[in-house]
Amino acid sequence: MSLAHGRPYLAIPGPSVIPDRVLRAMHQGSPNIYEGHLIEMVAGLFPDLRVVAGTTGHVAMYIGNGHAGWEAANANLFSRGDKALVLAVGQFGLSWANSARAMGIEVEVLDFGKSTPADMGQVEAALRADTGHKIKAVLTTHVDTASSIKTDIPALRKAMDAAGHPALLAVDCIASLGCDEYRMDDWGVDVTVAACQKGLMTPPGMAFVWFSEAARQRCAGSDLASPYWAWGPRAEPTEFWQIWDGTAPTSHLYGLRAALDMIREEGLPQVWARHRVLAGAVWAAFDAWGAGNPAIGMNVADPAHRGWSVTAARLGAPHATRLREWCETKAGVTLGIGLGMAPSTDPAYHGFLRVAHMGHVNAHMTLGALAVMEAGMVALEIPHGPGALAAATQVVAKGA
Amino acid sequence: MSLAHGRPYLAIPGPSVIPDRVLRAMHQGSPNIYEGHLIEMVAGLFPDLRVVAGTTGHVAMYIGNGHAGWEAANANLFSRGDKALVLAVGQFGLSWANSARAMGIEVEVLDFGKSTPADMGQVEAALRADTGHKIKAVLTTHVDTASSIKTDIPALRKAMDAAGHPALLAVDCIASLGCDEYRMDDWGVDVTVAACQKGLMTPPGMAFVWFSEAARQRCAGSDLASPYWAWGPRAEPTEFWQIWDGTAPTSHLYGLRAALDMIREEGLPQVWARHRVLAGAVWAAFDAWGAGNPAIGMNVADPAHRGWSVTAARLGAPHATRLREWCETKAGVTLGIGLGMAPSTDPAYHGFLRVAHMGHVNAHMTLGALAVMEAGMVALEIPHGPGALAAATQVVAKGA
Amino acid sequence: MSLAHGRPYLAIPGPSVIPDRVLRAMHQGSPNIYEGHLIEMVAGLFPDLRVVAGTTGHVAMYIGNGHAGWEAANANLFSRGDKALVLAVGQFGLSWANSARAMGIEVEVLDFGKSTPADMGQVEAALRADTGHKIKAVLTTHVDTASSIKTDIPALRKAMDAAGHPALLAVDCIASLGCDEYRMDDWGVDVTVAACQKGLMTPPGMAFVWFSEAARQRCAGSDLASPYWAWGPRAEPTEFWQIWDGTAPTSHLYGLRAALDMIREEGLPQVWARHRVLAGAVWAAFDAWGAGNPAIGMNVADPAHRGWSVTAARLGAPHATRLREWCETKAGVTLGIGLGMAPSTDPAYHGFLRVAHMGHVNAHMTLGALAVMEAGMVALEIPHGPGALAAATQVVAKGA
Amino acid sequence: MSLAHGRPYLAIPGPSVIPDRVLRAMHQGSPNIYEGHLIEMVAGLFPDLRVVAGTTGHVAMYIGNGHAGWEAANANLFSRGDKALVLAVGQFGLSWANSARAMGIEVEVLDFGKSTPADMGQVEAALRADTGHKIKAVLTTHVDTASSIKTDIPALRKAMDAAGHPALLAVDCIASLGCDEYRMDDWGVDVTVAACQKGLMTPPGMAFVWFSEAARQRCAGSDLASPYWAWGPRAEPTEFWQIWDGTAPTSHLYGLRAALDMIREEGLPQVWARHRVLAGAVWAAFDAWGAGNPAIGMNVADPAHRGWSVTAARLGAPHATRLREWCETKAGVTLGIGLGMAPSTDPAYHGFLRVAHMGHVNAHMTLGALAVMEAGMVALEIPHGPGALAAATQVVAKGA
Repeated sequence: MSLAHGRPYLAIPGPSVIPDRVLRAMHQGSPNIYEGHLIEMVAGLFPDLRVVAGTTGHVAMYIGNGHAGWEAANANLFSRGDKALVLAVGQFGLSWANSARAMGIEVEVLDFGKSTPADMGQVEAALRADTGHKIKAVLTTHVDTASSIKTDIPALRKAMDAAGHPALLAVDCIASLGCDEYRMDDWGVDVTVAACQKGLMTPPGMAFVWFSEAARQRCAGSDLASPYWAWGPRAEPTEFWQIWDGTAPTSHLYGLRAALDMIREEGLPQVWARHRVLAGAVWAAFDAWGAGNPAIGMNVADPAHRGWSVTAARLGAPHATRLREWCETKAGVTLGIGLGMAPSTDPAYHGFLRVAHMGHVNAHMTLGALAVMEAGMVALEIPHGPGALAAATQVVAKGA
Repeated sequence: MSLAHGRPYLAIPGPSVIPDRVLRAMHQGSPNIYEGHLIEMVAGLFPDLRVVAGTTGHVAMYIGNGHAGWEAANANLFSRGDKALVLAVGQFGLSWANSARAMGIEVEVLDFGKSTPADMGQVEAALRADTGHKIKAVLTTHVDTASSIKTDIPALRKAMDAAGHPALLAVDCIASLGCDEYRMDDWGVDVTVAACQKGLMTPPGMAFVWFSEAARQRCAGSDLASPYWAWGPRAEPTEFWQIWDGTAPTSHLYGLRAALDMIREEGLPQVWARHRVLAGAVWAAFDAWGAGNPAIGMNVADPAHRGWSVTAARLGAPHATRLREWCETKAGVTLGIGLGMAPSTDPAYHGFLRVAHMGHVNAHMTLGALAVMEAGMVALEIPHGPGALAAATQVVAKGA
Repeated sequence: MSLAHGRPYLAIPGPSVIPDRVLRAMHQGSPNIYEGHLIEMVAGLFPDLRVVAGTTGHVAMYIGNGHAGWEAANANLFSRGDKALVLAVGQFGLSWANSARAMGIEVEVLDFGKSTPADMGQVEAALRADTGHKIKAVLTTHVDTASSIKTDIPALRKAMDAAGHPALLAVDCIASLGCDEYRMDDWGVDVTVAACQKGLMTPPGMAFVWFSEAARQRCAGSDLASPYWAWGPRAEPTEFWQIWDGTAPTSHLYGLRAALDMIREEGLPQVWARHRVLAGAVWAAFDAWGAGNPAIGMNVADPAHRGWSVTAARLGAPHATRLREWCETKAGVTLGIGLGMAPSTDPAYHGFLRVAHMGHVNAHMTLGALAVMEAGMVALEIPHGPGALAAATQVVAKGA
Repeated sequence: MSLAHGRPYLAIPGPSVIPDRVLRAMHQGSPNIYEGHLIEMVAGLFPDLRVVAGTTGHVAMYIGNGHAGWEAANANLFSRGDKALVLAVGQFGLSWANSARAMGIEVEVLDFGKSTPADMGQVEAALRADTGHKIKAVLTTHVDTASSIKTDIPALRKAMDAAGHPALLAVDCIASLGCDEYRMDDWGVDVTVAACQKGLMTPPGMAFVWFSEAARQRCAGSDLASPYWAWGPRAEPTEFWQIWDGTAPTSHLYGLRAALDMIREEGLPQVWARHRVLAGAVWAAFDAWGAGNPAIGMNVADPAHRGWSVTAARLGAPHATRLREWCETKAGVTLGIGLGMAPSTDPAYHGFLRVAHMGHVNAHMTLGALAVMEAGMVALEIPHGPGALAAATQVVAKGA
């Protein structure tokens, strides 16, 4: 017997739940790509994308996923042989570093492990050590999707300033944009990378790179900026097709338009606040489950360093995998796998999971997911502390 | 600030949540209605509709809603001046009686109020009193959508048999079919009425009347059976168009086909069991909320007389209305209004609500709705007992 | 080999092609039916439905098809034993008469065959002969879907006035509303019947009855007006659910809203003009095909008596059936079957077909259908005159 | 007044008409991208993509458009400083050359203009002149979308063999795959590039590169193959995410699956034959329009060198632009702009247009487009020869 036969809730950290309004908007025949309403609609995407990232700078759209976003940023920021300093607090920071290295960029990684936030002192030291200013840019995740660690971007900017280093600051907001507070210009960020399938609530297929005027000028002439990656014609096109270096991703544009409308209608600060409260509800539940049960706990100890869109946690192997299976097959909730990116042969893999609270998510979805998790722990006899749901509802009651 | 911006959950007792698969199936252009695949597809609906009602008898499809189903049943069962005995345990039993009366049928109502199940002794007595066998049929709801009271159909059949009365037995399963256990043939039911928008998970627009061979023979020649209502050509058509007395409801047929496929794939007993468990979770929550808080309670005291698809409850005015508003605007859950059918000027109206757990509903949706309700009670400072969510998750954990 | 693999074009006289915009509008989850946006949206349907029929009178919506519309009109217009005078110029006039007769209404049919318009002199004579004014209403199709004959409603009104007869005038506009010019109030019509699946471009499932204040008053108290058919509460509801006597057809309402928006945006006179021109293109093609080929011809000789939404024609048996099959399987166009309603055992059946040009139809669709028909005649070696496509394009060129 | 209000037909050479079945398949919520049915579904795409290209070799999928496909092919085929020989017979061959050049590849272009097929003698000569075998690959379009010229790939292979040159052969089938006969392995092609939005009938957003085992081996170690472009992990992934170097384009995968099913069900040879016949119908119409009117004519004189998916033609300025506008606003058909890629300031631009007959297209759509064009010429008084539609229907009648 299964209690899963109803609307499934996919609570993995991306792709996130696509709103029905976005799906409906995408359900359209091909438009003319040379003339007419598509051209007007696309013109309106630029300012709204700027708002979402908190910038008055440039934005380039790409047909691609988050990895394409990284490669686009790399290709414009660097020429072969340039140097990058990468802060890694999880799988995705390391992957971005690997991407850059494979493109011929010299990469220095400051690896803080998978559960500890970046130490800005080390960053400052590394920059001070680079007396020749070989480091062209500092790369970091805002929220690492795998570890759910949030990096304090203003603090990073401060460290860079303290070191008196001219490097550009590039931030991967793939897992945070449209979820967690982010202010590109206010925080002194030069380049922001994101994709559409998380906080932007659109099926995977588009990536975005925002860049400051300073970045544009200092990066002109990169020898990695092939036609597909070059951000210039995409951000400042003279012909419509240049925005995507070829055919426009028409279906996604309709979806993105609807998603940006939804964000604008709700209000970006309200979107952030919603994520903050729902994340708080999840954290309260884990605190209760873990009380007296050290096997259960969140990956990030300090709430200030937890992302608002996803929570990585441990339950002890094989409990996490068993619970994920129970929730999906018995109750209609699909949770995310653990810290890494793919099923592992390491038994420890079965001890971790992630709960997404990302994008098109409300109190019903998150509280329901927590209640299902608790039901699963009861059914599977996974030891856990009491009071998690009451604690989570308290957070929601106060936050709503 | 609102935590409602995500997928809304409509937990009203119909129309219920339409599965994405059903919506997708309905998103089709018009088919040829004279030849081709539609004709084949419709042929397959008849046996599957029989299975859902537990009968090998006849079934007539109507373009209409539940009221149309009542009128269709009335029009075939009775001629003007015939007599009906109606058991009423809520608004909808009374409405069916009114429908019959307005059509020129003599109606005797056994009204048991809105919170008490039918007393089969009274039914038997009424039938025994009808020594002339003027009563042609006994009409009852299986589950009254308004009161959520379930009538014990086998017990009713037994009472009719005990009275030795030849009346036909007609049952309104609008709120129960595809949710609550129902076995038309095994239980000796002659006529069953349902509609598509509840357990059958299809947007409102179709009604169904199943009828036994005995009913067909005894009702032949009803002078109320106008061409639109006559069940004969619909159930045994010689031409395709007769199935709906004119143009087929093409879009709904695609949706119904998908919904019946889903029920078959899950298994009808599993569908019933799922509803039973989820209902049990809701009841456990109300039991906890109401412990020590007499203002909170379910409408039906005895679980054996509660429907598995909807739970009517009281919170005391104006708490119910305030809670409904909070859940909808703050958390994305829409609960049903109270016992009656429409907003009332009576202040008592604001003391009642209904929670649906009907059709395309899983543990995530129901537990989430309960958690949201509790959050709302906390936020609105509505006094309630503790432990409701833990109790509900226990039910789910054991039932899954 | 087949050249049909592309978007199929269903050119049957209903259900017509559903616009993508309507399908998309219908692809929505269930709304709350007690409060909120649905209630507002429905309020706006009434005035727009009035505009489409050209009336300031009342309008009742039904969940049903065209036959339901007839039965609704009959049930309100008449009490048992009242008399109707029905003008029949095809299958559908006769069917409406049969519907009335089966409901207990006395019916006098003036049957003008299937290819000849109504003779208003005969109508006037019949009314004059009814010196006791037993005839309560005159019933007629505006355009008979089967024969494609259009009845001259102003002329009918004139004949009724000339006879000095007080009968009400009821018109079936199922095949013409939203296609052919129609002005209910200006033309002195009391009751108009239509359905949603033709000119209103929505999947089958809704019927409409517009009625004048005079009709409302003179028909009050009909003993056929059962709760489902009674137009009063539907047109002047005190509670929302009364509009459909029960649950609202939510999905259809979204579709109807979109369809009415499309008509308003295009302009009703422009909609009529579009149908007139496209009909003219079809007629020009048939004139050319039939020149010198007496086996080919339109059913209605006089263009003034042809409907603008459908053209019935003959090709000689078995050519019509063979051509229909060729067009569908080889070229992607489905044409309508002949005059009757269902495949017949009479070989003559295979000599007739109908071409719809109804609702969501443009020059591309109609000219393409004609070109496909010509290609089929060539492929099947069906003798036909030359120049049909050139003639049709001339009509379009002048009319656009 | 407009006769355009019906289903619009977009007859531009990409994006092509998306089948309703594909749109419906894409209308789904996000799936789990780590486990479950998506993984199985994707496994089935590889063999079907091989069939469509006529190869048993490798295939890499990209989130991207046709330009991404070019860049992917370039990045794998070449290292910086390698040399390419590009055959150009239109805008898109030149663009591919520019893409390669901008990536640091030495490019030799054989430019045959926009209306003349490639001269294989010149190709052979160029290869013979490359005695040092510096040319690593020959690049060509199969059908250039802009000029509609088809390059004879077997003849090109023969010229390469005759020259005894070991260069790889890479073919851009963006405008031809799934339309025009193409046999990668039989014709000795090493690399094929395509995208999803033309013959593959899916909204823009995916590109594909097929490559032979020989190409894989000879291109290993390209210094341009950055992580996003490297075809190896995409074609032979050890983890699911590698197929797209990150998040899968879930929505497009559902659409692509449906499109490949449609092609398989129709049969690839039947798909090609359909395009050949419909192209023939278009050509017959232009031959008739141009007879005695030298201003009207197709871009490519020899039918053997015309692509089957798009026909480029001239009408003389400003007739082409005026006709395009008329067809779109008056009749519902959108034709493609002329040879170049974007509106030009050159008045000659207004003399050219393109008619697509690409992908999900049937006799009704193509004949309807031709009839609309003729109606437009009549309305706009553009001189043209008679008999075009009769000629086109003859082609369809014989071909179906």
